[in-house]
Amino acid sequence: MIEPNLELIAARLEGLEETIIARLIDRVQFASNLVIYEKGKSRFIGVEGLSLFEARLVAQETMDSEFGRFAVPEERPFNRNLQPPKRLVSIPENCLRVTDYDTVNFSADILAGYLRLVPRICEAGDDFQHGSSVEMDVYALHAISRRIHFGSFYVGEAKYSAHPEEYRKLVAAKDIEGMTRLLTRKEVEDRIIERVKGKVARLQADVNIAVRRLIDPELVAEFYREIVIPLTKRGEIAYICERDPSL
Amino acid sequence: MIEPNLELIAARLEGLEETIIARLIDRVQFASNLVIYEKGKSRFIGVEGLSLFEARLVAQETMDSEFGRFAVPEERPFNRNLQPPKRLVSIPENCLRVTDYDTVNFSADILAGYLRLVPRICEAGDDFQHGSSVEMDVYALHAISRRIHFGSFYVGEAKYSAHPEEYRKLVAAKDIEGMTRLLTRKEVEDRIIERVKGKVARLQADVNIAVRRLIDPELVAEFYREIVIPLTKRGEIAYICERDPSL
Repeated sequence: MIEPNLELIAARLEGLEETIIARLIDRVQFASNLVIYEKGKSRFIGVEGLSLFEARLVAQETMDSEFGRFAVPEERPFNRNLQPPKRLVSIPENCLRVTDYDTVNFSADILAGYLRLVPRICEAGDDFQHGSSVEMDVYALHAISRRIHFGSFYVGEAKYSAHPEEYRKLVAAKDIEGMTRLLTRKEVEDRIIERVKGKVARLQADVNIAVRRLIDPELVAEFYREIVIPLTKRGEIAYICERDPSL
Repeated sequence: MIEPNLELIAARLEGLEETIIARLIDRVQFASNLVIYEKGKSRFIGVEGLSLFEARLVAQETMDSEFGRFAVPEERPFNRNLQPPKRLVSIPENCLRVTDYDTVNFSADILAGYLRLVPRICEAGDDFQHGSSVEMDVYALHAISRRIHFGSFYVGEAKYSAHPEEYRKLVAAKDIEGMTRLLTRKEVEDRIIERVKGKVARLQADVNIAVRRLIDPELVAEFYREIVIPLTKRGEIAYICERDPSL
């Protein structure tokens, strides 16, 4: 059985920050284009009931599923009923002790949080770059989801294995508050938020604002504080509750 | 008829640099994984003759085509025989004077140049992140292709309209060398290459190398010097030769 390596896990989570920031910067190059989120306005033949954004998310995840993306624990889909992979995917052995990774899937909450973020970070209005906007939305969402689910699974496992007795009791008592208390490290959270804010600022420090739009570092920090970190913690708890010690 | 605005065109080209660099940085997070480029080794059911990379490029462009990506002049596909869009795409009026944008399509050369770049920028070996690697390849290629084709069309039109008589004569005489001389601005090319190199360095200046891999700024500058800029110039000439003054 592989043991969780907290140092590697933290490194991976830190490395994913650049990806999330880059994807959000990509998205803000386009206006908010809010019509792309309106159901029935996709003008896409065959999926008239969906928004253009939803149509893109379905198409992307249908393709990604064929390529085996969702065989990876931290890649949790936003859609259900996707087809199984069309290729043989080799997934390295891991330290997780759940068989169905979709028992920890916070996609709906991630999506809701992201859709609230878009109008805050993007320029208001419509620049008719609808295809590009939904493309960037999907990439940003996948990057955010990867970070949250990676944390949920691997940090969940690492924290559990550091205090198995305490967690076992809290799970048995269904004490979510107690688990939240036990796994919360306020100083780590604050450090992550500050680091993210600094990265956003530095990644844009030399940008020519005549040709590129910027994202407010404070808004990304807030997104981490209000969405990414709380959902990761809820994911850790979900993982710990689903964890099967017999595996 | 809309006139080309050189300032806007240059701004767009400059803004695309960040996107190319970000996509290349994404790719180098994974090993070169050269097996993904070998035909017949995709392990993907239904496309056994292709490489995994080719299978991904086909799947992505099939989806993108349905969403209308290739209705945009600078979005030229790498694959042929794609299906027409499934949505009504509004393309703003532009200054270009060709009806079939695919008469200027340098995808094959872009692909060849990119595939030579991969083993130079990525860590050698195989990390089994094949799905992610081909995903990042496709995004990087699209970003590079967008820059080269945008320049081909819009810079081509701008340069032509600045010297219509000279270009008309050179086109009539099929004098490619003469056209190359007329449209080359060595000092602009050098400035672009230096700017790109500086951006690559600055975008990575504060990165924690324990968690992220870096790309050598010199290699990206070289890619601009040897691939991006020469292909853009060949594209400008192709556009000028295809240009239909009656439009």
